[in-house]
Amino acid sequence: MRPTVARKQDLRSNLAERFREVRAHSRRLAQPLSDADATAQSMPDASPAKWHLAHTTWFFETMVLKPNAAGYQLFDPTFNFLFNSYYETIGERHPRPMRGLLTRPSLERIMDFRAHVDQAMETLLGADLGPEVAALIELGCHHEQQHQELLLTDILHLFAQNPTRPAYRDPEPVAVAPTPGETGWATFDGGIFEIGHDGSGFAFDCEGPRHQVLLQPFRIADRLVTNGEWISFMADGGYRKPLLWLADGWAQILAHRWEAPLYWEQRDGEWWTMTLRGMQPVDPTAPVAHVSYFEADAFASWAGKRLPTEAEWERASAGLPTAGNFAGSGRLRPKPAGTEGGLKQMFGDVWEWTRSPFTPYPGFRPAEGAVGEYNGKFMCGQFVLRGGSCATPEGHTRATYRNFFQPDKRWQFSGLRLAEDA
Amino acid sequence: MRPTVARKQDLRSNLAERFREVRAHSRRLAQPLSDADATAQSMPDASPAKWHLAHTTWFFETMVLKPNAAGYQLFDPTFNFLFNSYYETIGERHPRPMRGLLTRPSLERIMDFRAHVDQAMETLLGADLGPEVAALIELGCHHEQQHQELLLTDILHLFAQNPTRPAYRDPEPVAVAPTPGETGWATFDGGIFEIGHDGSGFAFDCEGPRHQVLLQPFRIADRLVTNGEWISFMADGGYRKPLLWLADGWAQILAHRWEAPLYWEQRDGEWWTMTLRGMQPVDPTAPVAHVSYFEADAFASWAGKRLPTEAEWERASAGLPTAGNFAGSGRLRPKPAGTEGGLKQMFGDVWEWTRSPFTPYPGFRPAEGAVGEYNGKFMCGQFVLRGGSCATPEGHTRATYRNFFQPDKRWQFSGLRLAEDA
Amino acid sequence: MRPTVARKQDLRSNLAERFREVRAHSRRLAQPLSDADATAQSMPDASPAKWHLAHTTWFFETMVLKPNAAGYQLFDPTFNFLFNSYYETIGERHPRPMRGLLTRPSLERIMDFRAHVDQAMETLLGADLGPEVAALIELGCHHEQQHQELLLTDILHLFAQNPTRPAYRDPEPVAVAPTPGETGWATFDGGIFEIGHDGSGFAFDCEGPRHQVLLQPFRIADRLVTNGEWISFMADGGYRKPLLWLADGWAQILAHRWEAPLYWEQRDGEWWTMTLRGMQPVDPTAPVAHVSYFEADAFASWAGKRLPTEAEWERASAGLPTAGNFAGSGRLRPKPAGTEGGLKQMFGDVWEWTRSPFTPYPGFRPAEGAVGEYNGKFMCGQFVLRGGSCATPEGHTRATYRNFFQPDKRWQFSGLRLAEDA
Amino acid sequence: MRPTVARKQDLRSNLAERFREVRAHSRRLAQPLSDADATAQSMPDASPAKWHLAHTTWFFETMVLKPNAAGYQLFDPTFNFLFNSYYETIGERHPRPMRGLLTRPSLERIMDFRAHVDQAMETLLGADLGPEVAALIELGCHHEQQHQELLLTDILHLFAQNPTRPAYRDPEPVAVAPTPGETGWATFDGGIFEIGHDGSGFAFDCEGPRHQVLLQPFRIADRLVTNGEWISFMADGGYRKPLLWLADGWAQILAHRWEAPLYWEQRDGEWWTMTLRGMQPVDPTAPVAHVSYFEADAFASWAGKRLPTEAEWERASAGLPTAGNFAGSGRLRPKPAGTEGGLKQMFGDVWEWTRSPFTPYPGFRPAEGAVGEYNGKFMCGQFVLRGGSCATPEGHTRATYRNFFQPDKRWQFSGLRLAEDA
Repeated sequence: MRPTVARKQDLRSNLAERFREVRAHSRRLAQPLSDADATAQSMPDASPAKWHLAHTTWFFETMVLKPNAAGYQLFDPTFNFLFNSYYETIGERHPRPMRGLLTRPSLERIMDFRAHVDQAMETLLGADLGPEVAALIELGCHHEQQHQELLLTDILHLFAQNPTRPAYRDPEPVAVAPTPGETGWATFDGGIFEIGHDGSGFAFDCEGPRHQVLLQPFRIADRLVTNGEWISFMADGGYRKPLLWLADGWAQILAHRWEAPLYWEQRDGEWWTMTLRGMQPVDPTAPVAHVSYFEADAFASWAGKRLPTEAEWERASAGLPTAGNFAGSGRLRPKPAGTEGGLKQMFGDVWEWTRSPFTPYPGFRPAEGAVGEYNGKFMCGQFVLRGGSCATPEGHTRATYRNFFQPDKRWQFSGLRLAEDA
Repeated sequence: MRPTVARKQDLRSNLAERFREVRAHSRRLAQPLSDADATAQSMPDASPAKWHLAHTTWFFETMVLKPNAAGYQLFDPTFNFLFNSYYETIGERHPRPMRGLLTRPSLERIMDFRAHVDQAMETLLGADLGPEVAALIELGCHHEQQHQELLLTDILHLFAQNPTRPAYRDPEPVAVAPTPGETGWATFDGGIFEIGHDGSGFAFDCEGPRHQVLLQPFRIADRLVTNGEWISFMADGGYRKPLLWLADGWAQILAHRWEAPLYWEQRDGEWWTMTLRGMQPVDPTAPVAHVSYFEADAFASWAGKRLPTEAEWERASAGLPTAGNFAGSGRLRPKPAGTEGGLKQMFGDVWEWTRSPFTPYPGFRPAEGAVGEYNGKFMCGQFVLRGGSCATPEGHTRATYRNFFQPDKRWQFSGLRLAEDA
Repeated sequence: MRPTVARKQDLRSNLAERFREVRAHSRRLAQPLSDADATAQSMPDASPAKWHLAHTTWFFETMVLKPNAAGYQLFDPTFNFLFNSYYETIGERHPRPMRGLLTRPSLERIMDFRAHVDQAMETLLGADLGPEVAALIELGCHHEQQHQELLLTDILHLFAQNPTRPAYRDPEPVAVAPTPGETGWATFDGGIFEIGHDGSGFAFDCEGPRHQVLLQPFRIADRLVTNGEWISFMADGGYRKPLLWLADGWAQILAHRWEAPLYWEQRDGEWWTMTLRGMQPVDPTAPVAHVSYFEADAFASWAGKRLPTEAEWERASAGLPTAGNFAGSGRLRPKPAGTEGGLKQMFGDVWEWTRSPFTPYPGFRPAEGAVGEYNGKFMCGQFVLRGGSCATPEGHTRATYRNFFQPDKRWQFSGLRLAEDA
Repeated sequence: MRPTVARKQDLRSNLAERFREVRAHSRRLAQPLSDADATAQSMPDASPAKWHLAHTTWFFETMVLKPNAAGYQLFDPTFNFLFNSYYETIGERHPRPMRGLLTRPSLERIMDFRAHVDQAMETLLGADLGPEVAALIELGCHHEQQHQELLLTDILHLFAQNPTRPAYRDPEPVAVAPTPGETGWATFDGGIFEIGHDGSGFAFDCEGPRHQVLLQPFRIADRLVTNGEWISFMADGGYRKPLLWLADGWAQILAHRWEAPLYWEQRDGEWWTMTLRGMQPVDPTAPVAHVSYFEADAFASWAGKRLPTEAEWERASAGLPTAGNFAGSGRLRPKPAGTEGGLKQMFGDVWEWTRSPFTPYPGFRPAEGAVGEYNGKFMCGQFVLRGGSCATPEGHTRATYRNFFQPDKRWQFSGLRLAEDA
């Protein structure tokens, strides 16, 4: 999360605008939620919507206002304990698995907290900000956007536990898409390339330093793996053949009886899936979502291919526009690839599992202080995902963006794209 | 839950009145709660307030209206799955530990469900009820009263998990009570006595059949054990001496590091306790509450006494008025014993652990059908508590009433009274 | 374990003889076991054979020799830590679930420990023992006999986990028994009776004080429930009908997928069972064994009967000889009832679950000191079994003997006899 | 485990010799063990010595003899179930956590199994072996050497659970070593280098293909981190400062209360450690062992350095002789670095944690069939260790050897060497 470039002076009004937009978007996301919806926590991995709304606000209060806004009054001194996520530097905090028991403060009071902080931020944004403070504010905006995606994935998980399967937003008809053709393959030469963030514009600390990598020639699929292809994998016994699986993945299958992606249910012989728009038939032309790294890896083995490395993915995405099916479209679920163009769906739709463990780039050092806890301490036991999803806020992702989750996690919008040696 | 006597014909209007009162009381209990408060579940033993409000209503819908109210329309067909507690006879049901994830239906919709059922019940209550239906309605009222107490104990547990320790009702000053004197002892002869319900008025099935028991002479304390006495027990190492404890109780202490009753916290050297009126200093003159059977038994060993059997307790309570500090007083926490009178606090304040495991009385048989699942299937691994508490609705308890919980449970208003052989 | 009578002076030579016999029997039980067999622990409930052999010896060393044998040299000072079972009075001890990791001391060294203690005991037994010491020695003999039975049940459990199903003793042909006829019923009047040990001869502390009980008229089956009857229960869906079960029992079934008694396996459509003589076909005429209290209770419900109380059982057994199929016969599994006589199989074959929780008799107080930890601290959450089993040493049980286990336990030779109200 | 080169014809007699040596070494390792020692399993990660002895033999029986030795008679058909480790291709197998319950077959019978297989192997080795069979035999030898190390680490873990702390081999005096001076640093240029096995001689499949890597300039410590340095880390609060730790590592500390390396105990203010030669004082000059990846990484952070990547380690080891303190020396614990020479202790003493997750090298594909399950399916969630340890058989390791364990594991002889960017 350490911004890698100094902020230019004329960015101030842009920054204020951006801050307002990001904050307003969180409010919009909360609109369909009741106080109870916003309070419940469906599993330790997930957090209540209320918590996301408060924690992102706590970030601005703690990191920006307290040290920089003279005379700032804390909204509520208990919030530092309640809404710190994992910053050991900041102090004690409420245990994560108990977040869902915080029925007070209410959603309404959290919204008051947001308004209180927003007001103080407006004053600060109108003053002469040094580059460090501006950088922290920008970081806070990106941080809040991350939680905007988590708010959606966590609400989906919560609603999926409810036997009545409530919809976050009303279902809408989905236009019938043409069946995607055979996967095409884009070929790339080997050689020395640079990956990682180059310092122009914002990036999280783990995206740098930019550095050289040595790649062998490879091919990468021109679209994501679809639900239809996943159904073929299942029909061929994909979930019952241990040799396709990593040992830890096979243990998951035995322990949790996985037979299909998360949220899939069979009803009268048809596959349906829970979405942010309620239960929907599985669309065979749309990209598969809610699969773990273990499943993505097993699918690739079944297909005789492999997952790309994150360097390959970044090399392939070079020069492509960061455009796609993001949360801004309101669709809130993955969309079939069109038939036009070259590499399709590189951004949006689903985060793409890579075969790269989340490790530090050469020369990486966490920042000093609390912000140094942002990414570095998670560099163990997780895999990198690239590209963003249909729940990612518009403008939040980029080619160098490194998302990361443990290989058994399925509640994010996570899918895959195949690759192979050329 | 099987009523043991036929209903008299002139009870109908009384029954309607009683039904309305009980139902109105539940609504009053829900008033201080937000939608989120009413949704959360703080542990698998507890249920959300919303669930209590819905389940008691489901009971009337399922047991009374469906079989007896011609043309009754179910409010919502999913509720049978959502709000069945444990009736295997009725069918599948939502898993208990996941009740807190039901953010929908909302509290408001549950209140609509209550109104819908109440309206249909009014029609039924105006008609010519057979004694069986009347008995089921009376059972439903007592059932709802049980859940009224649980709603309070479960909300207390929920609010106690919240670092901000919210109060269910506003704190109020507590009148200073005179320190209780030494415990007095009431002596009872041995001999053959009858215990159990005699069939006049309502009783749960497990309170009968009335039957003879053979008692040895015994003495029983004339008041409950106080917080002050409990502090002496703690000061004498009560929680650190294994020989005072049942083996399973000692294992609990080691596993959960019990050092005081549930909800007690030390602040600046003083003991405080969480109550339905928020954090309060521990009153040394008031009865100790929120202790497990294990703790009650260890205290009795430390004091050189024992707990009474349920037959002894019932013998001692014979002829006493069923009066005391119940929920109706609005105090919602135990009250010091006065200095007047003989056996004090036999009813209200705290449920009194007896040393009697919850077993069937001679000749007991569960009723046929769903209501037969009410009590009989829990006759294993639990101990009987007698007398009612400060959270028990007025008029709900009686001398033959058998409450029962596992010996490690502490979240009820449970305390103790000492006894010994005479 | 507190002996209830003073020892007579002329008992000394009898006591020495008894001590030698008991100790020799343990050695015989260990003969078929390898060092490894005697070391492994198949579950926390069970203990290694080596541990039983050492712990019973530790009992004599600690309770008898240390305080009473002048100049006695401890065999090994580490053994007090290793082989204390649960005596908090004595001090720290090795955690029970880790007993199976004690590959040293070896079985051979444990046998040396036994010889060392036996030698010191011979000296002591030759001296002028006071009645207290004599009582402790007798207690130690009975204690060792209890562990002799546990050694057998624990070895059976261990060998049952081994896919090769080794036999503790060689299989032998079982004489074909006539199919038992319909159960006969013995009827007993109600009234006041005395139960509990009267003080003549040895008894454990929990068997007294002898006291009056009030019984209603009852009938009790003249034989044990058979495997054949159990198969009928299973065929009628006994393990699939929740209404037959206590709630905790049904939870066990769901959690552990019980479908038959412990050790039963279906092979080519026939039921087989693991025994101390290896895998054997289930004999439909023999008593069912290795069922939990939950199963026994459910069977009784299915049969329209109930389990007897321990007082009823003791009343019914009054005047019967303490004879039956005990471990001394070497059969080591239950035997079909004959067709002759009245109440059959009251002693031996299988311990009979009663519906009585294990609670203190009126007036019971644990002894002072370590021996007071023997029984009293387990008076919670367990049910009483009566009569002894095919693994009980000859002469160890009696009509007042109270065995006790948690209701989910199945690895003992536990079965049932039906009863009903008369 | 796929050998990467064809075997030359004249290797046959060498192969027979090697087979005999490896097999004899396992027998020697088993000599200090009793039947019980060889049977117990101290945790699911570990296996009984008997199991190691049998499983390595099962490998030769299943992979070599069954398909290639005409008329070979299985020693015991149940062994395929009992001693398969994780080969899904081969079939069902005994659950790993229950290995310690196999008191039968005895150690003696396992030794008979070994003799039976060795005899059949001698016949086969005397015949005209094709290169594929020879390669499988060589693989079997390396496989057995891996288990020789595990047998030692597992016995150490077992004996460390025993309160009497038995020694696997007799303690011996350790020569006093001079205190190592400051760490020296060897500097390496960046550039493109080749790592991985080049195909001459045996290697496991995961060591190849040999491929190019791009390195930045780096420095690497000339010796291992010592116990003395570790004590400084502890004294400086190393185990109490969350910012030094990966998030998962800090969670381990909280859950398991780590305060020192595994096996360390404080006695009268001095640190002692359990070793294969019993309890020994911690030698401050010797390399620290039995630390997890989490601890190694935290130490490096504390020291202001980092762990090397596996490519850096392999680059640094290029050209060094594969010599060091291996199991053949009989010392069986790490040895202080001398003061002479350049990079010291690169081989032997302790496996060195690298910061590289265990991932496939570019172009890696598992072999077809059972041997393909050897390494590939573990390429998730583990970190690479390099160099071998004092428990590694002589001649088993090499510069390209990739050992791998989960980051929380401590029971191997695992330590660390520091590195930094140049």
